[in-house]
Amino acid sequence: MAKYIVVGGVAGGATAAARLRRLDEGAEIILVERGGDISFANCGLPYYVGGVIPRQEDLLVMTPAKFRGLFHVDVRVQSEVIKVDTAARQVIIRHGEEEYPESYDALLLSPGAQPLRPPIPGIDHERIVTLRNVPDAAVLKKLAGDYPQGRAVVVGGGFIGVEAAENLQAQGLSVTLVEAAPHILAPFDTDMAALAEAELRQNGVKLLLEQGVQEFLHHEDGTIGVKIPQEVLTADFVVLAIGVRPDTVFLQDSGIKLGERGHILVDEYMQTSAPAVFAVGDAVMTFDGLTGKKAALPLAGPANRQGRLAADNIAGKKRKYAGVVGSSVLKVFSLTAAATGKNERALQKAGLVYGKDYRYTITYPNDHASYYPQAEPFALKVLFSLQDGKVLGAQAIGKKGVDKRIDVLAAVLRLGGTVYDLEDLELAYAPPFSSAKDPVNMAGYYGDNILQGLTNPLLPAELAAEQERGALIIDVRPPEMFAAGHVEGAINIPAAKMREQLDKLDKKRPLVVICKIGMNGYFMERMLKQSGFEVRNMMGGFTYLQGILP
Amino acid sequence: MAKYIVVGGVAGGATAAARLRRLDEGAEIILVERGGDISFANCGLPYYVGGVIPRQEDLLVMTPAKFRGLFHVDVRVQSEVIKVDTAARQVIIRHGEEEYPESYDALLLSPGAQPLRPPIPGIDHERIVTLRNVPDAAVLKKLAGDYPQGRAVVVGGGFIGVEAAENLQAQGLSVTLVEAAPHILAPFDTDMAALAEAELRQNGVKLLLEQGVQEFLHHEDGTIGVKIPQEVLTADFVVLAIGVRPDTVFLQDSGIKLGERGHILVDEYMQTSAPAVFAVGDAVMTFDGLTGKKAALPLAGPANRQGRLAADNIAGKKRKYAGVVGSSVLKVFSLTAAATGKNERALQKAGLVYGKDYRYTITYPNDHASYYPQAEPFALKVLFSLQDGKVLGAQAIGKKGVDKRIDVLAAVLRLGGTVYDLEDLELAYAPPFSSAKDPVNMAGYYGDNILQGLTNPLLPAELAAEQERGALIIDVRPPEMFAAGHVEGAINIPAAKMREQLDKLDKKRPLVVICKIGMNGYFMERMLKQSGFEVRNMMGGFTYLQGILP
Repeated sequence: MAKYIVVGGVAGGATAAARLRRLDEGAEIILVERGGDISFANCGLPYYVGGVIPRQEDLLVMTPAKFRGLFHVDVRVQSEVIKVDTAARQVIIRHGEEEYPESYDALLLSPGAQPLRPPIPGIDHERIVTLRNVPDAAVLKKLAGDYPQGRAVVVGGGFIGVEAAENLQAQGLSVTLVEAAPHILAPFDTDMAALAEAELRQNGVKLLLEQGVQEFLHHEDGTIGVKIPQEVLTADFVVLAIGVRPDTVFLQDSGIKLGERGHILVDEYMQTSAPAVFAVGDAVMTFDGLTGKKAALPLAGPANRQGRLAADNIAGKKRKYAGVVGSSVLKVFSLTAAATGKNERALQKAGLVYGKDYRYTITYPNDHASYYPQAEPFALKVLFSLQDGKVLGAQAIGKKGVDKRIDVLAAVLRLGGTVYDLEDLELAYAPPFSSAKDPVNMAGYYGDNILQGLTNPLLPAELAAEQERGALIIDVRPPEMFAAGHVEGAINIPAAKMREQLDKLDKKRPLVVICKIGMNGYFMERMLKQSGFEVRNMMGGFTYLQGILP
Repeated sequence: MAKYIVVGGVAGGATAAARLRRLDEGAEIILVERGGDISFANCGLPYYVGGVIPRQEDLLVMTPAKFRGLFHVDVRVQSEVIKVDTAARQVIIRHGEEEYPESYDALLLSPGAQPLRPPIPGIDHERIVTLRNVPDAAVLKKLAGDYPQGRAVVVGGGFIGVEAAENLQAQGLSVTLVEAAPHILAPFDTDMAALAEAELRQNGVKLLLEQGVQEFLHHEDGTIGVKIPQEVLTADFVVLAIGVRPDTVFLQDSGIKLGERGHILVDEYMQTSAPAVFAVGDAVMTFDGLTGKKAALPLAGPANRQGRLAADNIAGKKRKYAGVVGSSVLKVFSLTAAATGKNERALQKAGLVYGKDYRYTITYPNDHASYYPQAEPFALKVLFSLQDGKVLGAQAIGKKGVDKRIDVLAAVLRLGGTVYDLEDLELAYAPPFSSAKDPVNMAGYYGDNILQGLTNPLLPAELAAEQERGALIIDVRPPEMFAAGHVEGAINIPAAKMREQLDKLDKKRPLVVICKIGMNGYFMERMLKQSGFEVRNMMGGFTYLQGILP
């Protein structure tokens, strides 16, 4: 009878234990969890704090008792593995005062990650809290209740920080979100993150970007002073959401290879450097499914996938992980923001150059047919390789239909698809759900046009250079839109009138056309180019220039 | 200067004309449309009838004037091509009384399809109408207004029939939907279509299946008698939605090769048998993207895709169509029903056998995390090949999240993906949008388990045979669920108690386990099998047996 020990009972660990049982009914399976809960809904914690998820027990997807009953797994909560001896195939478990050894035939590590608490002066304060587990959420919910009209400072603009900010603000607190980077939500490029930032601000969240916290001051009245370069914010409590680090201190002398930042290194079978020891979830360093390079992605989806694969491999199957893609989504008040694959920052970090190695499309499609009620536009950015047209990443933000398109793009990306494949997708269409040319198809058409040289869209950052070299800026929107705002120096020739005006334009002067969202401008770009003009169309039109949703 | 004629100004034709202009600014482009409108929203017609789309002009996505202005296309509405002379490269156009020739360098045919009006006695009656274009919709809307509490009979349970039935019923009419086949919505298998039928009935639509209309009686009071085998229905008006046939009578003497049912035969470049003549849309016979066999699919998405490709090919590019997949979606009151690829009927028609060539999974996932408010279960069926695991088709029905999953599956299917790929998809997850294991991942896991022989789910149709050979039926749901209804003869052993009861079970007797949706049953199947029992799990649990949503 084989004996398996699983360390960590959330996401990857719980998944692995259950799968192991299904593959090996005869095995002894011990699930060791440091906290009091297993398989809890950690992605739901901000929503419990906000009251959207009303009861704490709603977060407990699976209790130790249910798990024992259904899977016959020896669940040991409040139990911590403090040492791993890979030579002896044995762990030491601490439960309260007691410490005892437990041997294994295979060990699966899913210890997860801990919230970062950097050594900022004054950070140790009972009202400077993190949000990682159910007790954390209970503490934060109590704080929010204790200061019903209070001031909260959230430090960190990642997913948890933004979700926490929304959930606190929506309860009537005044929330300030402090982010050290120039933009929140690292999976998104600056242009897309700006839309989420605008939504936060519009809903009353005060956003302070490029502001690192220098010190926390403990005021006598019990409030906390959050010292940032320009000011000291006063807070009734502070939520730290700066990020996480692998919870792997207990492995330091185990001989299991760890990465620089403490991640457990695993191969494509989720196996560590030690025999019969596997690892999954937030604590592991695995690989990027696109590039094959080392990558860590502390998200629930990959953790679950890895847990299942590790169990398969422990049970003797040989199954490879496909690597991480980096798909994510979050709600930001009335908006959905979703992303998959690489953003520009990631591509550039990998040495890829815009215009040489990759380009992207910006479109503002409606989530469904515009003539059917309640259609809402969203912003869609698709990045692709200039070598082979491969989809490298995508980001979308808007009210509706965003998660659908990003999931479709995530599927294409996983399967190594190109912008040509996006064109060929036959997606389900009826007016309440999409358009006959789905936004994903349209992005494919656009990318294909770029690859074929049919269009050479201008980026907002490139506009100044065009102006400097004397380009004539033609705004092709209707006069009333032009009157409401336009690029300085632009003239207005509505698209439908352009052909009549051609002979008045100087063929020696380069042109830039700007429309509302980039579509009519493209039509004009095609016409003008074939009529002998040097012309570029402003990507995403005036909407993208302004950095707003249509 | 090249001269292009496009016949038909909706979907494929309009798309092609606009694309041609962008590729060839110098060309003369003539768009000939028999009706008064181009590029109208024909998929929106039922919703205009129902008042969901309030104004007729909302349906006119693009007017002839706008199209002329933006694309410099010579739009000729109320003009019909009555003859094509491919040798002389010339068409004859009829406009009112006038007939005149027009030559072309390339001809693009997008004539669309006509609603079928089979020769049923009495079918010619001003209140027996079809729904294909804006004037049709105006007539039907007027009829609905003329008989505000009236009785409408819809003949045909395809997409348009169901959408028309919903939109009439929702306005207060009493609608009877008559369908000659055993089930409505041909893209769906019987098991899935039943869920849509239940929704129609629950909303007051009277459904009569396997009822062909034998005669229409013209009553003296102006009502119509719809004679079906068992009875005569009385209707204030009748909507015929039996299907469409290619509108290609004008091509009969052209030498352009047509299929048996009048479809224009095209190659993968959308070219017809005649030089410089291309065709797209509802009127063409193209090919199946999965099998390569001839296929016609009169839907807006493929029409648009084909229109663009044909324009590219006319303009000298060589671009191949990827073939039709068969993706569709519709709203049925509060439900969404969507499908992609092949259903069982189609597979069996192609000679594939369940259990030998293909199998499928049935799951009832929530659209998003169950602990986040307003999660709704949907039914998901995924068909896959037993040879290589390739996804062959998928169908889903439920309140939310249905279109998203079918689009993801449509993407995987288009790219030739397998159930293993479904497992590896990294889809965007946060509690309001999905689960850490997305429904598509779960279907992949299930399919993989079947392929590996980890499970051998029993179909409802196979249950009787198991009972006959003396299988013990064990319902593993909680006692209160068992008490509320169960399979006759089943005993109740809740899943969590099963291991304690093992020694009371006879290892020589085959077992069938049934749970609520097929999940706990699978856990029990694994356990029992490894404990020496012969056991099968009921696919989709008691829910699938009952043919309902959870």
